[in-house]
Amino acid sequence: VIGARLVNGVESAAVAADDRGLQYGDGLFETMLASKGRIMHFELHLARLREGCHRLGIPEPDRDLVENDCERVLAGLDGGIVKLVITRGSGPRGYRPPEQASATRIVSSSARPPPTREPPEALRLRICEIRLGLNERLAGIKHLNRLEQVLACAEWNDPSIDEGLMFSADGRLICATAANVFLVSGGRLVTPAVRDCGVAGVMRQAVINTCRAMGVDVVIRDLGLSDIKGCEELFVTSAVRGVRPVGEVIEVGNWSVREMTTMIRDKVQETSP
Amino acid sequence: VIGARLVNGVESAAVAADDRGLQYGDGLFETMLASKGRIMHFELHLARLREGCHRLGIPEPDRDLVENDCERVLAGLDGGIVKLVITRGSGPRGYRPPEQASATRIVSSSARPPPTREPPEALRLRICEIRLGLNERLAGIKHLNRLEQVLACAEWNDPSIDEGLMFSADGRLICATAANVFLVSGGRLVTPAVRDCGVAGVMRQAVINTCRAMGVDVVIRDLGLSDIKGCEELFVTSAVRGVRPVGEVIEVGNWSVREMTTMIRDKVQETSP
Repeated sequence: VIGARLVNGVESAAVAADDRGLQYGDGLFETMLASKGRIMHFELHLARLREGCHRLGIPEPDRDLVENDCERVLAGLDGGIVKLVITRGSGPRGYRPPEQASATRIVSSSARPPPTREPPEALRLRICEIRLGLNERLAGIKHLNRLEQVLACAEWNDPSIDEGLMFSADGRLICATAANVFLVSGGRLVTPAVRDCGVAGVMRQAVINTCRAMGVDVVIRDLGLSDIKGCEELFVTSAVRGVRPVGEVIEVGNWSVREMTTMIRDKVQETSP
Repeated sequence: VIGARLVNGVESAAVAADDRGLQYGDGLFETMLASKGRIMHFELHLARLREGCHRLGIPEPDRDLVENDCERVLAGLDGGIVKLVITRGSGPRGYRPPEQASATRIVSSSARPPPTREPPEALRLRICEIRLGLNERLAGIKHLNRLEQVLACAEWNDPSIDEGLMFSADGRLICATAANVFLVSGGRLVTPAVRDCGVAGVMRQAVINTCRAMGVDVVIRDLGLSDIKGCEELFVTSAVRGVRPVGEVIEVGNWSVREMTTMIRDKVQETSP
C-alpha cells in the first residue's frame, strides 16, 4: 500500500526542480509512525522540527496545515509511516537563502515496513566505517544533508544485519544509521550526546522522558567502543521501529540480557501519547 | 533571461517528490560557465562529476546525453550558466541506496549573474563563523549536502561584502562559500588542501594546471589564518566568476598587490578550452 502525497496541501507526485531541498539539501524532515489514525509522539516531532526551522532560518510550517495534511494522507489507512519534509522552497541559483523564503511542505504516507525481525528478537548490528563529521550548528536536527547515512547503509548488503553503528570523526559512538543507541552500563542507562553530530531522535527523547518520569536517571555523555564492550544491555530506538534490543554487534560480541530494555520498551509503549 | 530546464532530457520544471536528491541530498552538481555557446572547462567538470559518481556509487551519466542537454538549454543564449544536477533518482523511503539506481539528470541554464564588482576591482571578503565538518569520503566532490555553505551565506547581508572565507572544524582555511582560495606567500602560490572538507573547484584545477604548464609551482597544503595575514596576494576562483583578486578581508586587512594574480588570470583566460 502506497499512500498519498501532498505538496503544499495539493496532491502531487512532483516538486519544483529549483526547490532548495533538492539543490542543496536545504530543509528538514520527520518520519513518524501512525497507528489507528494517530501519529505517535507528534508533539516531539513538531518540537524537533521547530528547532530545525529555527536553526536553519526556515519559516515554521503552520501546525494546522501539517495536521490536516497528515490526516489526509492517512485516510483509509489504519496505520503506517507519515513522512513530512519542509524545505526552504524555490529560489534562484546560489547558496544564499532568499530573503523571503516560501517553504515547501511535503507530506506522504507509506505502509509500515515489514520488520526485519519480529519484535521480541534482538537485532544484529555491525560497525560502519564512515565517520560522522562534526558541526554543532547541524547536530541534533533532522536536516536533509544525509549522505553520511546513505554511504553508511551502502557499506553492507547482508540482510541478516539490521543496522550499523556510527562513530564521530573523533571516534565517539554516536548512533545507528537510522536510530539512536542506549546502553546499560554499571546498572545505569546511558546514551551518546548529540551536540556536534547525530540526530536527537524522537524515540530517544521519549525514552529519556519516560525514564525520568519513573525516576530512572539517563546519563547523556560521550561514549566510545570500550563502553559497548563492557555494557550489560544495548538497545536502539527509532520513531518507526520503537525500542529494539541488540543481541549482537558483529565486531564486538553478544548480549542476552534485556531486562531493562524490555522494561523501558513496555513503559514507553504504555505511556505513548 | 531564464533558460530552459530538462529533466532526463525532457522539458520539465518538476522532479519526482521521492527523488533521493531531495530526500537526502543524494547527488552531485556542476555549475558551468558557457560563452559563445560553449561550456568552459567542460572536461574538468565531467572529471569531477565522474569522481563524485564513483565515490557515491551513482551511475555516471552518459556523456553524449549531458552534452546534448547542455546544447539544448543554451540554444538561443550567447552565454550563461549551465547547471547540471545528477541524483541517485527515485527510491523507497530509507537511507539505503536502491540496488538498481536510475539516476536523475537535470540540466538548466540561466543568465550570467551581474558581477558584484567589475572584474578589475578587487573583492571584499569576511570570515564566516560556521566551520566545515570533516569527512574525507565527501571532501573534494560537489555533492548536494550544502547546508554549511547555505548557513555561511546567511551570516551576512551587507551587499558590499562579496564572499566569506570558511575554515574547517579544526581551524584550517579551506575555501570561500562558493569559491576556492589561493594566496601568494614568499613568492610562491599556495592553495589549501581539500582532502577532508571543501570542494576541488574546477577553476582551482584550471589555475593549478595552467601554472604547472608555465613552470610555476603550486603548493597544496594546510593553511591557517596566520598565512592570510602574512601573504602578499590573495585571490579566489570559481568556474562562474573566474580568477578574482581579493582587496580586503575585513577581519584581517587589505591587499593592493596583484601582480601574480593578474598574470595567472590572464594566462588562464588565454588557455581556457
